[in-house]
Amino acid sequence: MKSPASKPLNAWTASEIVAAIGAGRTTCEAVMRACLDRIAAREAEVAAWTNLDPARALAAARAFDRNPASGPLAGVPFGLKDIIDTQDYPTEWGTPIHRGRRPNRDAACVALTRRAGGVLLGKTVYDRVRQSASRSDPQSARSRAHAGRIVERLGRRGRRPHGADRARHPDHGSTIRPASFCGVFGYRPTHGEHRLHGVMEASGSLDTLGILARSLDDIALYRDVLLGISPQQIADVAKAPRIGLYRPQIWDQVEPTTRRLVEDAARSLAKAGADIHDVKLPEVFAGLNEAHRWISSFEFARTFTWEIEHHWNEISETLRNGRVADGLSCGFERYIDMQKLAEACRRQFDALWQDYDIMLTASAFGEAPVGWNTFVGAPLYMMSTALHVPSVSLPVLTGPSNMPIGLQILARRHDDRKLFAWARWAYRQLS
Amino acid sequence: MKSPASKPLNAWTASEIVAAIGAGRTTCEAVMRACLDRIAAREAEVAAWTNLDPARALAAARAFDRNPASGPLAGVPFGLKDIIDTQDYPTEWGTPIHRGRRPNRDAACVALTRRAGGVLLGKTVYDRVRQSASRSDPQSARSRAHAGRIVERLGRRGRRPHGADRARHPDHGSTIRPASFCGVFGYRPTHGEHRLHGVMEASGSLDTLGILARSLDDIALYRDVLLGISPQQIADVAKAPRIGLYRPQIWDQVEPTTRRLVEDAARSLAKAGADIHDVKLPEVFAGLNEAHRWISSFEFARTFTWEIEHHWNEISETLRNGRVADGLSCGFERYIDMQKLAEACRRQFDALWQDYDIMLTASAFGEAPVGWNTFVGAPLYMMSTALHVPSVSLPVLTGPSNMPIGLQILARRHDDRKLFAWARWAYRQLS
Repeated sequence: MKSPASKPLNAWTASEIVAAIGAGRTTCEAVMRACLDRIAAREAEVAAWTNLDPARALAAARAFDRNPASGPLAGVPFGLKDIIDTQDYPTEWGTPIHRGRRPNRDAACVALTRRAGGVLLGKTVYDRVRQSASRSDPQSARSRAHAGRIVERLGRRGRRPHGADRARHPDHGSTIRPASFCGVFGYRPTHGEHRLHGVMEASGSLDTLGILARSLDDIALYRDVLLGISPQQIADVAKAPRIGLYRPQIWDQVEPTTRRLVEDAARSLAKAGADIHDVKLPEVFAGLNEAHRWISSFEFARTFTWEIEHHWNEISETLRNGRVADGLSCGFERYIDMQKLAEACRRQFDALWQDYDIMLTASAFGEAPVGWNTFVGAPLYMMSTALHVPSVSLPVLTGPSNMPIGLQILARRHDDRKLFAWARWAYRQLS
Repeated sequence: MKSPASKPLNAWTASEIVAAIGAGRTTCEAVMRACLDRIAAREAEVAAWTNLDPARALAAARAFDRNPASGPLAGVPFGLKDIIDTQDYPTEWGTPIHRGRRPNRDAACVALTRRAGGVLLGKTVYDRVRQSASRSDPQSARSRAHAGRIVERLGRRGRRPHGADRARHPDHGSTIRPASFCGVFGYRPTHGEHRLHGVMEASGSLDTLGILARSLDDIALYRDVLLGISPQQIADVAKAPRIGLYRPQIWDQVEPTTRRLVEDAARSLAKAGADIHDVKLPEVFAGLNEAHRWISSFEFARTFTWEIEHHWNEISETLRNGRVADGLSCGFERYIDMQKLAEACRRQFDALWQDYDIMLTASAFGEAPVGWNTFVGAPLYMMSTALHVPSVSLPVLTGPSNMPIGLQILARRHDDRKLFAWARWAYRQLS
């Protein structure tokens, strides 16, 4: 492991923090304080936190130092998106409708993180939730306007790598797209492997727990923590992989620079020994983004029946006229047709993996957009979400404005560990 | 519709209640009072309710009568299993660990039921929850001992057909097996079609909302309410169906009488014109019950990490030594192997449907067992649960002790409406 001494404490990876605390080279309190200092310096601009109490976070860190837990995340501070239930902090789903909501237990993923030694820092804002906030709430309107930039900036400041933004996929692109915009590693696991009890549901057919982190090692570590199993190191690969270049039917809508960057990356990996071919996508894949749209909106509009019935006026116009209107107007026959289309794609996708170890595409259309536009760049994660395959975003591309763009790598369902191994191989060739 | 005048009000179907209230022939208050009277007469013996306040239920009924809502369940009292969140009643998952738990909103399925005009009667006990109650709680120990009979009796008293026992599948067989024991209609939908937000998760890969009801019409009606769509009548069928007789690899463990009853039913349906053949099950299906066991226990032990970490001593020995121990001992590799086995079965099952409209099997090994033995009869619903197919239990068989046994009918995933139509055809031939 490279010595982290040259980096400020708030920029260490989880693995570095665990090692240093374990060896007595630092304390949980020192790391927590570094995070809090960094937040204090940037929060006015970034507005990332919805519930943060520095005194309480420091007290938790000191309690850890007095009686250190062991575990793969021992002493690592973590933030939680505000759609994830915590016993000791409110979980308000970012909306005035649920202001003050206090679940009486930790979500499964929180209990697993704490069992591994993680120390809660606070709760972070939920973008989509901001959308469900009343328009008459100036705080909400301000945050909404800057949400794109908030996401971009989160990755640039010393946000804790583990748990900083792990969450479901309720807003359009909670993992792969933000990772792309932030220049960090993102990972969306095989659908269904992680328990979501205690996490706000948006679309049960598509929701997953996503992880943003500073390194692939941290992602692999945290994935195993969230599965409740002993962490395994990422394996070394014996030879260069067979790679499919995945250019979906909407590829011509991706920004030309992004397309060129992904194709250049493919050429670099070919030079490093990878066997690269274009993936021939079956015709039916052209409907995958539409399937994502109708499945997610149909389900969203049912999940939030209580809010729609009792708090209609507190739901933002954006949400009412967008996803909720879509969902309420979507007939059941269309919903089932879209489910069948997605199932057919998953089945045909499984068959394609005989020829490839991984597939390569972009994580987003381009750099983070200026302002807040939910749907810019959406389809490139929607397609992999609907396919239920695991996916990582590698921070290896740089756009025309010198901003990061992610390279998205997909693997077969349940091949998450292999995905990490191949992704690390690719990252080493490209970074 | 047959006049319900000859039946006591508490025994009416939902459709009969809605029609009678709509026509001014009765009131919600009268129906609610009939239910409460029946409960008062039987509750000491049956112990079905965990949270029931007659004054409050009557007040809700009177409020309905003063300002009647329209909707497909207008004025129908409903009970809710205590794993389903309600804004106005505690939801305690039946365990002292969560005594007093009060969610601040209705689960999606509750909000949908109320939007359709349903009026909440109270919360019913959750059997599995009784298992997670402390052994030192005499009330819990008593109920545990009688749980088998409670389930059996619920269907025999005037329990409200809709919502009376709809719930996920957390305990071993929440729908098909209890329906079999109770002599009522049961329905477990295609996996994934209904939203489960606000319902306690047990095993996300297998959980569904199940319905117990007095008629197939009521099941079809309530299914559409829970999907948030306009109810459709069950279609008439033009000709007798092609039926597969589904005798799984464990068929020789089913009680001989039950096997004979199912085979007799198949012969009766053949006489009525059905084309009946034995389903040739692929070898891999022999592993389906094991897959159910390991998938459900692995997930259960992660979902309840918080309870395991903080309330170990309040979890019953039965649960600790059973499902939780299974789940904690199950390696991730086995879990994923079992997921892949279930996926392979689902895929091969889809292909089998070219030859059949429905399949026929038993709902349970035999009559309701005396005492409480979770696993008696379990495999016959586990297999269809793991296949993610819709299933109904028809109360058409009678066992050697003159107790009911259900005939289970399966259909292809997403063919729930067709299942109702064929099931009604079969019911008319057999009843």
